[in-house]
Amino acid sequence: MTEIAGGVCAPKGFKAGGIYCGIKASSKKRDLALILSDKPCAAAAMFTTNRVKAASVLVSREHLAGGVLRALIANSGNANACTGERGLAAARRMASLVAEKLSSKGEAVPDSQVAVASTGVIGVPLPVTVIEAGMDRLFAALSRSEAGHEAALEAIMTTDARKKAGAVETRIGDAAVRIGGMVKGSGMIHPNMATMLGFITTDAAVSRELLEEALRRAVRRSFNRVTVDGDTSTNDTILIMANGEAGNPPVKAGSGEYEAFASALETLCIRLARAMARDGEGASRLMTVTVRGAENEDAAETLAKSVASSSLVKAACFGADANWGRVLCALGYAGASFDPAAVTVRFSSSAGNILVCEKGGPAPFSEEEAKRILLEEEVEILVDISGGGLGEAAVWGCDLTYDYVKINGDYRS
Amino acid sequence: MTEIAGGVCAPKGFKAGGIYCGIKASSKKRDLALILSDKPCAAAAMFTTNRVKAASVLVSREHLAGGVLRALIANSGNANACTGERGLAAARRMASLVAEKLSSKGEAVPDSQVAVASTGVIGVPLPVTVIEAGMDRLFAALSRSEAGHEAALEAIMTTDARKKAGAVETRIGDAAVRIGGMVKGSGMIHPNMATMLGFITTDAAVSRELLEEALRRAVRRSFNRVTVDGDTSTNDTILIMANGEAGNPPVKAGSGEYEAFASALETLCIRLARAMARDGEGASRLMTVTVRGAENEDAAETLAKSVASSSLVKAACFGADANWGRVLCALGYAGASFDPAAVTVRFSSSAGNILVCEKGGPAPFSEEEAKRILLEEEVEILVDISGGGLGEAAVWGCDLTYDYVKINGDYRS
Repeated sequence: MTEIAGGVCAPKGFKAGGIYCGIKASSKKRDLALILSDKPCAAAAMFTTNRVKAASVLVSREHLAGGVLRALIANSGNANACTGERGLAAARRMASLVAEKLSSKGEAVPDSQVAVASTGVIGVPLPVTVIEAGMDRLFAALSRSEAGHEAALEAIMTTDARKKAGAVETRIGDAAVRIGGMVKGSGMIHPNMATMLGFITTDAAVSRELLEEALRRAVRRSFNRVTVDGDTSTNDTILIMANGEAGNPPVKAGSGEYEAFASALETLCIRLARAMARDGEGASRLMTVTVRGAENEDAAETLAKSVASSSLVKAACFGADANWGRVLCALGYAGASFDPAAVTVRFSSSAGNILVCEKGGPAPFSEEEAKRILLEEEVEILVDISGGGLGEAAVWGCDLTYDYVKINGDYRS
Repeated sequence: MTEIAGGVCAPKGFKAGGIYCGIKASSKKRDLALILSDKPCAAAAMFTTNRVKAASVLVSREHLAGGVLRALIANSGNANACTGERGLAAARRMASLVAEKLSSKGEAVPDSQVAVASTGVIGVPLPVTVIEAGMDRLFAALSRSEAGHEAALEAIMTTDARKKAGAVETRIGDAAVRIGGMVKGSGMIHPNMATMLGFITTDAAVSRELLEEALRRAVRRSFNRVTVDGDTSTNDTILIMANGEAGNPPVKAGSGEYEAFASALETLCIRLARAMARDGEGASRLMTVTVRGAENEDAAETLAKSVASSSLVKAACFGADANWGRVLCALGYAGASFDPAAVTVRFSSSAGNILVCEKGGPAPFSEEEAKRILLEEEVEILVDISGGGLGEAAVWGCDLTYDYVKINGDYRS
């Protein structure tokens, strides 16, 4: 497996584009994106677990039931959530606008082959007329080049400071298969995919069922292990479209080919998830929390999430303060059982590795050295709960900074 | 029931005092407190649910098993948590120092009649020798006056910006009965009493069993409904001592007298809990979240806690931003069931009351008026989930500010 360029346009047979249509009226930044496959795709998606679901989520879930997609349309600047019947009608209209446009070119594309996603402020009616007015320009902006991918990516960003995308290539049989993706999300991020949009394309020939299975596995070990602020949003969507243009022999369940595909997808998703944590609202550093020695992977994940979600650990990380007591405290209220007297904690980064807690108590260490390690842009908190188990999990988060408060103190205006 | 002065010294037969003994070496602020009853007290306590428990919690839990207390000794500046066997020995020593001192005056007071509490940094050995060296001064500082209460209160404060205390008087039979209390806590506060110390005295004659029952009820509706940052600490302790000096006829289970006592205790605890939320680390305003119309009180509490704990709601509150969408979002991931399309949200303060969300969607409102309401020091978010139930609960929290980050970015130094 190798990393390649091109994002969602890296796989064969996909175009993407993004324009400003008038939703982000104050900044005039791109706010409408389209990803289009030349051929119908097998498709799978996962949506927010929040009981309050955006209209776009409700409509996409309905459309995904068919398991076939041609296109995805997404807007930023407005979440189209808590917008009632009017919001539902607007989300349906977005899909039908794309279907109509494609159908006008001679193909009969049903609305159900178009997925919809939205992100932005909640509770404000979506101005669907400006989207309608922008459709010609949106289609004209489509491109197979990386520039098309970039424009689409820009059009789904809100408070994101960095572009988060990637693509990988692997082999299935004699065919080179590509997987490309983009994600949006920097606040309201918490395990279970909060306020993130993730769009993945692949030219692999793979059934909808296996696509779903591979996506579920990849999301569990990537996006569901990212936490920024503990809020799970109304709009989370992660969606994958596979158009089969790579010409590989169809992937079979349980085969080495399936494993190659699933692990390439997992690798890409982990890369995107880390990038999302690194770009957490106001974040100054990426914080990876790894727990080892737990009873099983679930217990390790529960413990690691608790540490990565703790406001006090996050604030200490911002201050590059080797406050390991807060790590133990967060382990203690995680809800998974372990022996506090057996815990070992290390802080690690490219500047070094230091033992700060041994057998649940203080280990002698140099505060100066710890500071030097924690001042790096990427730091790791390594917890060995020494429970004798093989359960291990890594969770990605970020520090809590002044900028987080600034960004979220007045997001709407 | 009336409010009175005096704090923990308001009930008859209690003395309190506080000194600087040498733990808070950098600030030289008071760091050692003692509350002493003239006579043995019926006593009850609740402790942290964190699996990592401070040595003081382990020792106090052991001592409370007997149900009788004469005194409580508490220090600030060091949590005596994650300090292993040495920490346990230090906590035991604190209790025995008090028992020895009392015994030296001619009474035989067992160590088990002394409770211990600590708060401060985790994972640093407690310098018990400075506590020992300070014992004579600590006893000399004891006073029955409000000044004694104030000194003891100062000696348990860490990042607290305000003193949080109160006392009430009610009648049981012909006797005036008093209940006084003090609390410490401003960060690491989350339902289930995180990083808070609460000490309550009363001169009521009441059995240990009823005292426990009344305390559990009061804590459920007060301290367990405060959230500052979602962290549950290693040291939480709330403790009540009843010495019977008021001379009331012993309170009977299920009687009007019990109800009078329990509701006075609940009122005092709610007052202290609100004060704690108001004094959340870095908080600029108190945020009360009230949920009505839920299936039952538990469901209402779950929904209200989710809103009050949301970093995004808290940041919006700091920015006086009427971002009701974030309120709906937090309700949605709370885990209690409700119909998003039936929810009503109002913002309220002494400056007015405004409807912002009706039937799960936007209600037309003046942003200017909303801002004026939200700029007050105490604001309320009123949620009616219109589920037809009578379940109602109020939860207290505070906004998320630059100062929270500042305080916690470098707490240890």
